[in-house]
Amino acid sequence: MTHLGIDAGGTSTRAVVVDPAGHCLGHGRSGSGNPISSGPHVAAASLREAAEQALAAAGLPGSAVGSTSVAMAGGSRIAEDDEVAATIGGALLAAGVHASLAVEPDLLALYFSGTHEPSGYALVAGTGAAAVRVVEGEVVATCDGLGWLLGDGGSGFWIGREVVRAVCADLDGRGPSTALTPLLLDAAPGTDPDTAEPLAPGGGRAPALPHLVRQLYAVPPVHLARFAPLAFAAVDSADDEVAADIIARAGASLTRTLAAVLLPDLDGPVVLGGGVLVSQGLVGDVVRASLVATRRRAPVVAVTDGLVGAAVLALRRSGVTVDAATFATVTDSLARLR
Amino acid sequence: MTHLGIDAGGTSTRAVVVDPAGHCLGHGRSGSGNPISSGPHVAAASLREAAEQALAAAGLPGSAVGSTSVAMAGGSRIAEDDEVAATIGGALLAAGVHASLAVEPDLLALYFSGTHEPSGYALVAGTGAAAVRVVEGEVVATCDGLGWLLGDGGSGFWIGREVVRAVCADLDGRGPSTALTPLLLDAAPGTDPDTAEPLAPGGGRAPALPHLVRQLYAVPPVHLARFAPLAFAAVDSADDEVAADIIARAGASLTRTLAAVLLPDLDGPVVLGGGVLVSQGLVGDVVRASLVATRRRAPVVAVTDGLVGAAVLALRRSGVTVDAATFATVTDSLARLR
Repeated sequence: MTHLGIDAGGTSTRAVVVDPAGHCLGHGRSGSGNPISSGPHVAAASLREAAEQALAAAGLPGSAVGSTSVAMAGGSRIAEDDEVAATIGGALLAAGVHASLAVEPDLLALYFSGTHEPSGYALVAGTGAAAVRVVEGEVVATCDGLGWLLGDGGSGFWIGREVVRAVCADLDGRGPSTALTPLLLDAAPGTDPDTAEPLAPGGGRAPALPHLVRQLYAVPPVHLARFAPLAFAAVDSADDEVAADIIARAGASLTRTLAAVLLPDLDGPVVLGGGVLVSQGLVGDVVRASLVATRRRAPVVAVTDGLVGAAVLALRRSGVTVDAATFATVTDSLARLR
Repeated sequence: MTHLGIDAGGTSTRAVVVDPAGHCLGHGRSGSGNPISSGPHVAAASLREAAEQALAAAGLPGSAVGSTSVAMAGGSRIAEDDEVAATIGGALLAAGVHASLAVEPDLLALYFSGTHEPSGYALVAGTGAAAVRVVEGEVVATCDGLGWLLGDGGSGFWIGREVVRAVCADLDGRGPSTALTPLLLDAAPGTDPDTAEPLAPGGGRAPALPHLVRQLYAVPPVHLARFAPLAFAAVDSADDEVAADIIARAGASLTRTLAAVLLPDLDGPVVLGGGVLVSQGLVGDVVRASLVATRRRAPVVAVTDGLVGAAVLALRRSGVTVDAATFATVTDSLARLR
């Protein structure tokens, strides 16, 4: 009997078939598997495609799967929505998988992608940002993850918003000059100053500003997250003080989010995930420095996604004890597949 | 021959009939007159109603109006939109007014509500925030007014957003305790902790938080401006440090916005408008202190709306020289009508 772990994200979905010893036998990848952000049809198609790919790569039928864990933003709560539960269950049935199904928090899968230890912490900063405390394999405390308007301090959206606000202030003459400005004008689509119309109420505007503003309001707010990399680029290429300040504040904000779930007497591993913490060194450095200052000894591990953890959760939920050796088998065998 | 001045705002619209000597003869008031925020039908009905009320109060037919000035966010640019121009013109025709029509920036009407001087500055902080430099009766420079997502630093939205983020951080354990929290939980509708469901991904949340978050995402972001008064209340009632910091930063932001349009050799009057600067003393105090520090001698005047200025603009556009005496006539006679 094998197990199926799926890490269903808003951008991509990954699936892996794993045997009870932790050997990953097949792996698949598809598009958005989040029914809330992408709708049930897209999510169902992605879940089915990733599962079918993983089974095909393993050379196994869906009937060989004894249990399935699907990691998703919202975790078990999301599956209490009947439509969401039907979406996930239907997609797996379509892939020939009739096994029992558990829906897990994506942050728990992220955590178990970095460690086999049953208790510790995870901090993620992608488009959003949140921290969790994990005790005996369950999320027992959560901080932030409150979304772009009310929270997600230090996230990709948060950084991207600070970038565009700093550029607007620069062009507006009320903020310092910054290397972010030419970077954003290059990166934002259709900001040709020659075609810009004056912004209401007119008079004395930088030519690039009105068109930039119109372009940025034309997309959903969360899309500002795509400009977060400009902050890192401006520090790397120009040692830009405005960008360095944004990154420092993002790091401080994420440090506070993590600190809110840390317990003095639980010195468990800290797993970092998400592009802001993993693809870029600077923010992660701030968070790591804060952990050193608290004299914690447990390791800090960065992971690129939650797929290892989805496999670990599928094993744990079916009664397999995932120790250091089994965890190493999962990570090593999955690395060879990917 | 008389003149019609209209101050068309997103919340309310005011109209006044004024004679060439500056005597205000009648005044009217209605709902939103902004065709962009409220749609053409609502705006047309408001413009017509305010104009008809003002004419009826003056005991004059629409044919007695020789020229009309309508002050509106966006100013003359907004009237270049054919649909908007048709909305405004049609509403005035329906009120029997066939006179020539000029659409003016709302910030220019705000400016001329505080002074007859042709050159100076205006700073407004209502839901949004912007500053203008006025030279010889025209807006020649503008700063901010870039909207809730990209700008409007120090505005009612900006303060309200800081308030709700501070409360979320408090409830989340990653920010300081603040007197804003009980104030917001009282002010936000339907935040009964007993009915709150856990927020994804669950685990260890303050009971009030998930429901509050759901309520706040259920309304358009700009509605957060309604929580700005809580910052002032928290300082007044509890000397709250978190709220005081928000107010200090709002004042600093508005000071930068105003400073960006100030010229050293144009020591003209500074007209302040909008609820953040006028209804509440604290933010205006920061801005006034900054002006004292620059050794400017021109007066700083606070005004409650742009209606006096709409009358002044109607007079100016028809060739009347509005000197100190005429300005006093406008303000005194309008005050007696209201």
